[in-house]
Amino acid sequence: MKVVFADEQMRHQPAQIVSSGKLVPSPEIAARAEHLLQAAMRAGLTLEAPNDYGLEPIAAIHTAAYLKFLENIFVRWQRIPDASPDVFPNIHPASRNDVYPASAVGQVGYHVYDGACPITADTWGSACWSAWSAVHAANEVLQGARACYALARPPGHHASSDLAGGFCYLNNSAIAAQQLRQKYDRVAILDIDVHHGNGTQQIFYARDDVLTISLHADPVRFYPFFWGAANEHGRDAGHDFNLNLPLPRGTAGADYMVSLQQAFERIAQFAPGALVVALGLDAFKDDPLAGLALTTDDFGHIGEQIAALDLPTVLVQEGGYPSVQLGNNLAAVLQGFTA
Amino acid sequence: MKVVFADEQMRHQPAQIVSSGKLVPSPEIAARAEHLLQAAMRAGLTLEAPNDYGLEPIAAIHTAAYLKFLENIFVRWQRIPDASPDVFPNIHPASRNDVYPASAVGQVGYHVYDGACPITADTWGSACWSAWSAVHAANEVLQGARACYALARPPGHHASSDLAGGFCYLNNSAIAAQQLRQKYDRVAILDIDVHHGNGTQQIFYARDDVLTISLHADPVRFYPFFWGAANEHGRDAGHDFNLNLPLPRGTAGADYMVSLQQAFERIAQFAPGALVVALGLDAFKDDPLAGLALTTDDFGHIGEQIAALDLPTVLVQEGGYPSVQLGNNLAAVLQGFTA
Repeated sequence: MKVVFADEQMRHQPAQIVSSGKLVPSPEIAARAEHLLQAAMRAGLTLEAPNDYGLEPIAAIHTAAYLKFLENIFVRWQRIPDASPDVFPNIHPASRNDVYPASAVGQVGYHVYDGACPITADTWGSACWSAWSAVHAANEVLQGARACYALARPPGHHASSDLAGGFCYLNNSAIAAQQLRQKYDRVAILDIDVHHGNGTQQIFYARDDVLTISLHADPVRFYPFFWGAANEHGRDAGHDFNLNLPLPRGTAGADYMVSLQQAFERIAQFAPGALVVALGLDAFKDDPLAGLALTTDDFGHIGEQIAALDLPTVLVQEGGYPSVQLGNNLAAVLQGFTA
Repeated sequence: MKVVFADEQMRHQPAQIVSSGKLVPSPEIAARAEHLLQAAMRAGLTLEAPNDYGLEPIAAIHTAAYLKFLENIFVRWQRIPDASPDVFPNIHPASRNDVYPASAVGQVGYHVYDGACPITADTWGSACWSAWSAVHAANEVLQGARACYALARPPGHHASSDLAGGFCYLNNSAIAAQQLRQKYDRVAILDIDVHHGNGTQQIFYARDDVLTISLHADPVRFYPFFWGAANEHGRDAGHDFNLNLPLPRGTAGADYMVSLQQAFERIAQFAPGALVVALGLDAFKDDPLAGLALTTDDFGHIGEQIAALDLPTVLVQEGGYPSVQLGNNLAAVLQGFTA
């Protein structure tokens, strides 16, 4: 299997994020990518850099206004007197129907829903390369590979069609799924990040050609708070094509596997041509953001069971934050998958 | 005329607000109230403290969930490890239909839409007394006074039924208007604050018994950005009972008076039994947040012209930030009104 990654993905290095009213260091650091890359190579994967695929595969998921905003906001922000070095939001609309403002401050609040998504001079570039890694991995599968791993960093699953949040700017998993639609009529996305994949859910919420499933710590008291409840089923044509499996905080392997089986049953029923795994590793028991309690062995089993679905599969990196086991957890998934 | 004010309104003293990604001192300081009170008394008004009217007049405007949140969030916030002293939001829903979370952090983001509304130990108390000053002033008018001035601080017009923003927690002007509805079938609210009265608009947007009119700097590049466009007319029964008169940045007296005449014509057509003036003084040319360019003389003319409507009138303080003329601008309105 190949691991797809571009060095440009490391450039995005926001100094701090806002958490509980304070600026704190971001856990989504560039060093994550180094750990994950080394682990993927230890697991036997071959490194390949993605091509520059341009805006087309990204614009298939994100709105034109959002992409223009992401590309230009850092420069615009520097013109504001006494602004912070990185771009942070400070005022937000109440709904997506409110006026789209012309001002930089207004647009930041319109497009960035939390304080965990600062935009630096390098964010747009790194986010594009992260998305292109996902496109490249999807293309590998389209061209016949059994599976491919996109080391997508910055991650993507909290980004909706026109919203950044939770360290995510472009939704790499959604972009990969859409790319796979070039060949496959139905694509499933299985999100095992500890946080609900709210961006992915929003993007495909009214569609029946992309099934979205997320296993995550119950958002009633956990990020992202406002999305991820069990009663969010999709709407219009997409009704019953979104499945949320929220889990009590601290859920460990045995109970987790019960929900994972539910996910697999729904995938089997859907009969997709290909699968995207939104591969968060932060359901690990010692992850700094942990809400669940998976072990490294559990990640190995998850890899095995996903492989047993016997589908062309793109694994797209999502969350998972520095702990001594971060690399080992990725290696366990990849080795389980390829065993 | 009486000026209604309670000393408890001074206790709310957030240290800082978030602006363009940085913590900065708040311009909405307690000393504003002292300047305004002295000016009102110089203008010949008599100070009266409000009664404690309890939650009933406030709950006529704001949701039960929001009031419970405002009352308790400061204490809940203190239980979060490493949180800031004052309560600040850091993640926001995309719409009011998203899940209402149980967590403190989630609820702060649900109910506070910007970084200009920190909640301190004293915020709830000061906001209630500010609202009670508005209720008291409305009661004065209900009992036959020609007019009454509520020195409402913290201000209110950016607060909607369940959202705090822009230094505003409880919508004092809306609470006064609702109180006036006990006697008058139709009440008009004329908002002359430099910022759009988005909270007031939202509260009465579907109602035809309270006409809401706002003159303000065009929000396309000015706070509150997402609301205040000329094409926001109201909805359902409230269609055509909301009038926004956005003005180009830097608009001065002569052009301002043209729009004010439009407002007066709409009020005359509506034929209300009573009037609430959402009395911001920040359209002043030297206001620290200024977007318009009114002079102290202009404020005097505005006071005269509002008096000429010959309606029972509650003047409710909204914005207006420390400048050497802040008190004089209030005095000019009050003297113009009572001349």
